[in-house]
Amino acid sequence: MAQRPDEDQTRAGDLAQLVNEKGQSYLIRLKPGHQEHTHNGVLLHDDLIGVQWGSEAYSHTRKRFLLLQPALEVLLLKTRRKTQILFPKDIGFVVIKMGIGPGQRILEAGTGSGAFTSALAFLVGEHGHVFSYEARPEMSELASQNLEKLGLSSRVTFKVRDIAEGFDETGVDAVFLDLPDPENYVTQAQEAVKAGGFLGCIIPTANQVSRLLETLHRGDFACIDVCEVLLRFYKTTPERVRPMDRMIGHTGFLVFARRIVPPTEPS
Amino acid sequence: MAQRPDEDQTRAGDLAQLVNEKGQSYLIRLKPGHQEHTHNGVLLHDDLIGVQWGSEAYSHTRKRFLLLQPALEVLLLKTRRKTQILFPKDIGFVVIKMGIGPGQRILEAGTGSGAFTSALAFLVGEHGHVFSYEARPEMSELASQNLEKLGLSSRVTFKVRDIAEGFDETGVDAVFLDLPDPENYVTQAQEAVKAGGFLGCIIPTANQVSRLLETLHRGDFACIDVCEVLLRFYKTTPERVRPMDRMIGHTGFLVFARRIVPPTEPS
Amino acid sequence: MAQRPDEDQTRAGDLAQLVNEKGQSYLIRLKPGHQEHTHNGVLLHDDLIGVQWGSEAYSHTRKRFLLLQPALEVLLLKTRRKTQILFPKDIGFVVIKMGIGPGQRILEAGTGSGAFTSALAFLVGEHGHVFSYEARPEMSELASQNLEKLGLSSRVTFKVRDIAEGFDETGVDAVFLDLPDPENYVTQAQEAVKAGGFLGCIIPTANQVSRLLETLHRGDFACIDVCEVLLRFYKTTPERVRPMDRMIGHTGFLVFARRIVPPTEPS
Amino acid sequence: MAQRPDEDQTRAGDLAQLVNEKGQSYLIRLKPGHQEHTHNGVLLHDDLIGVQWGSEAYSHTRKRFLLLQPALEVLLLKTRRKTQILFPKDIGFVVIKMGIGPGQRILEAGTGSGAFTSALAFLVGEHGHVFSYEARPEMSELASQNLEKLGLSSRVTFKVRDIAEGFDETGVDAVFLDLPDPENYVTQAQEAVKAGGFLGCIIPTANQVSRLLETLHRGDFACIDVCEVLLRFYKTTPERVRPMDRMIGHTGFLVFARRIVPPTEPS
Repeated sequence: MAQRPDEDQTRAGDLAQLVNEKGQSYLIRLKPGHQEHTHNGVLLHDDLIGVQWGSEAYSHTRKRFLLLQPALEVLLLKTRRKTQILFPKDIGFVVIKMGIGPGQRILEAGTGSGAFTSALAFLVGEHGHVFSYEARPEMSELASQNLEKLGLSSRVTFKVRDIAEGFDETGVDAVFLDLPDPENYVTQAQEAVKAGGFLGCIIPTANQVSRLLETLHRGDFACIDVCEVLLRFYKTTPERVRPMDRMIGHTGFLVFARRIVPPTEPS
Repeated sequence: MAQRPDEDQTRAGDLAQLVNEKGQSYLIRLKPGHQEHTHNGVLLHDDLIGVQWGSEAYSHTRKRFLLLQPALEVLLLKTRRKTQILFPKDIGFVVIKMGIGPGQRILEAGTGSGAFTSALAFLVGEHGHVFSYEARPEMSELASQNLEKLGLSSRVTFKVRDIAEGFDETGVDAVFLDLPDPENYVTQAQEAVKAGGFLGCIIPTANQVSRLLETLHRGDFACIDVCEVLLRFYKTTPERVRPMDRMIGHTGFLVFARRIVPPTEPS
Repeated sequence: MAQRPDEDQTRAGDLAQLVNEKGQSYLIRLKPGHQEHTHNGVLLHDDLIGVQWGSEAYSHTRKRFLLLQPALEVLLLKTRRKTQILFPKDIGFVVIKMGIGPGQRILEAGTGSGAFTSALAFLVGEHGHVFSYEARPEMSELASQNLEKLGLSSRVTFKVRDIAEGFDETGVDAVFLDLPDPENYVTQAQEAVKAGGFLGCIIPTANQVSRLLETLHRGDFACIDVCEVLLRFYKTTPERVRPMDRMIGHTGFLVFARRIVPPTEPS
Repeated sequence: MAQRPDEDQTRAGDLAQLVNEKGQSYLIRLKPGHQEHTHNGVLLHDDLIGVQWGSEAYSHTRKRFLLLQPALEVLLLKTRRKTQILFPKDIGFVVIKMGIGPGQRILEAGTGSGAFTSALAFLVGEHGHVFSYEARPEMSELASQNLEKLGLSSRVTFKVRDIAEGFDETGVDAVFLDLPDPENYVTQAQEAVKAGGFLGCIIPTANQVSRLLETLHRGDFACIDVCEVLLRFYKTTPERVRPMDRMIGHTGFLVFARRIVPPTEPS
């Protein structure tokens, strides 16, 4: 991801995605002399270093693997976690809805395991920045480590803080709250985000949506939207095109709003 | 979007999003001396210039509007078009799935009206670039104008070309095909994209999915995925949380694959 | 429906479904000497009487129609209405979930326009019965007329009543509540339904679901289920299989429970 | 279901639904002197006989169960099977779409494990009849046993037959095909169903839909519809209303058509 995407050869220290014949992916760090033990046999890291990205590799039991630069989707889904993470389907829509892109300053709370933080850090680029608040020190630490692995930690400032006190930043382009009670932090978000900027939230239950909407309607917000994103995968056999038997039925409701400037009282 | 997001005051020449009380949005270019005629009365551009983004504005009939920097979602949905455009729900998932971000070189065909081109140009930032192929000169011209309006045209090279001849670029990070018969251009895409890079396609029918899968399975591709994204909006009344009565039932199937390096024949 | 399904010839007085070339359906009552004025020209009823069901018929402008015994789905969707009706997708699931079939005694409130009443009357057959409560006399009257047209009114007893007072029947197989506040009538339903019998409700908002669940959990109910049914139509062109562009996004949440017998206090 | 629904006391020989505290259901046949071994302890059948339906029962480990007349939905889902069965969500829509009800004659092929056969036999009542064709003798035998258990076998005629030869019946109200290649039996179905009657099919893949549509458009059919039914369950905690994490993503596409009478050639 952040690591030399222009190179076409693997190098020691690279994070790599190994894909087996069933399409299952593993993330590994290439280290000279190391061995990778998988359900499909052992791979020697030395065989995986200095070869072309996109090549095949074989375990000692002659099982075939593909060696790929890690896909962003896989990095997100494989985030080492102690919490529920945002799913790629939700991240994608949040990014477009809130117009997140290069050079922006984005604030999020809570950090959680850092999956969404990774996506934000990737998307704002070298000239943007992410401020990520989390009340639990051990979660912030985990997320920090996860970002470090991806080479993205210079783009993120982690803060361990009860956000009831408010945020340090002002004028950020967007604030995203992944908290059980976002309605309690709408005022703090309002003070941090620039006029016209975006507030986004993800919450699993309709009861939370109801409480959040009540608060948003009372605050200085407009363009309020509530939605959910459903992703349905299909089998990939050409002569049997059909959805998979099972799908994710729910991750969370997404709630969006834009901060407006209240009319000043005529004096 | 590309236009001075850091400014908090509107200026002549800015593209602005006007939102009426019903939540409907209009995109306008702020021009001194101009008038904006809406269903809710007339607004004077001079009243909209030099004020804070996020402010209220009133028409001559005292109808309230909000004045906002255009949201990316709205820019995409309001793209002046002669073709079906990619929807934000699909663009969002494509972006995360293909890992599109700052600094990348992305190739797309066909250009169409340029909605997805705009999203790509926004996301790759100043240091990335988009190469956009289109066979119909008038479509390419329309898209070029659309990108110009957004101040993003320096990030895009438009080419009017029958892509059966292949693409000029090689080693791009990702290729996206929005064509009725992507199966006929898989080889060309394969030659343009870097090893391990992404191919993405959107096609409306299951029959097209079947044909494309057949071709992909024969080519040098792996990690093939087919999916569809469903977006469901909810009403925003706190005491009546419920999905909207109607929703978009289908836009297209998304097909993804990554280019692999075929094993070289032992000599 | 109830009218001589075994006959294969149309007769004066029959209710018939006319289908035009676009697949749009009209319900008409066949009357000697009458004319039917449609957007596709005029049809003479005399041409439609005494012919085989399933035949073609032509208007004076030579537009083709099909003459069919009315489909249950079409009868339900074409119910003359002053209220929102239950949709076939929801009725179908309710029927199977509550095990509604021949010979049963079913209670519903409110009657509304009588679409669901029609389906129930059809399904319980000659030996079953439907008791349908409604507070608004004009709605009950409309529903009664609608059932009369279908020849099903002998299977239904309509009652104009505020159901806060309770129902007259006991030991019914199932109770279905299509009311804005079903949580206020759970006790009455509990007294009317047999032990082990079903309670079903349809309500549009998640807030209502929350209130109803609270009441059900406190009452003598088990096997509580909440669900929603989504129906997605596809285009019927063989070489372009794909979902329709638009679909119904929401009708209502379905809530089900079974009445249990509370343990008697040891004396 | 067919067994004395009017009785409110359990009797020896009854089929009963036991529901544990987690909401999981078991179907058992009440037999004097027998014991029921469950994951939640042992129940004595003698304690379950002669009590009121809807009562509580306790295992030897004091785990609570509910004793209910079997719900149709549970009978269908618990059908002893060697094949994929139709799901209640699909059965419900098929029933309403095809207008299946008391007194009708319905034909189905193949029988499979008999889940849909059970629903049909239940719904057509004592005065209707189901003709169920199956090429594999062992499947027909299994379905026959399943119907026997439900006390519904007198309403069904099972035939072991390759239906390429056609059906014995004519003028049936509806034909339902649950076969991998329904397009090969459209002519046979057309000869069996009455004019204006319904043909219904369930098939898992879009490729099959495409082939079937091609055949239907060439045959004497109108009112062709293709759809899929999605069912989404919600959690039942009042203060946390939300969809379940996982759902069934696909069972099959439903295809419907009505037989029409082709115009006779002018002689």
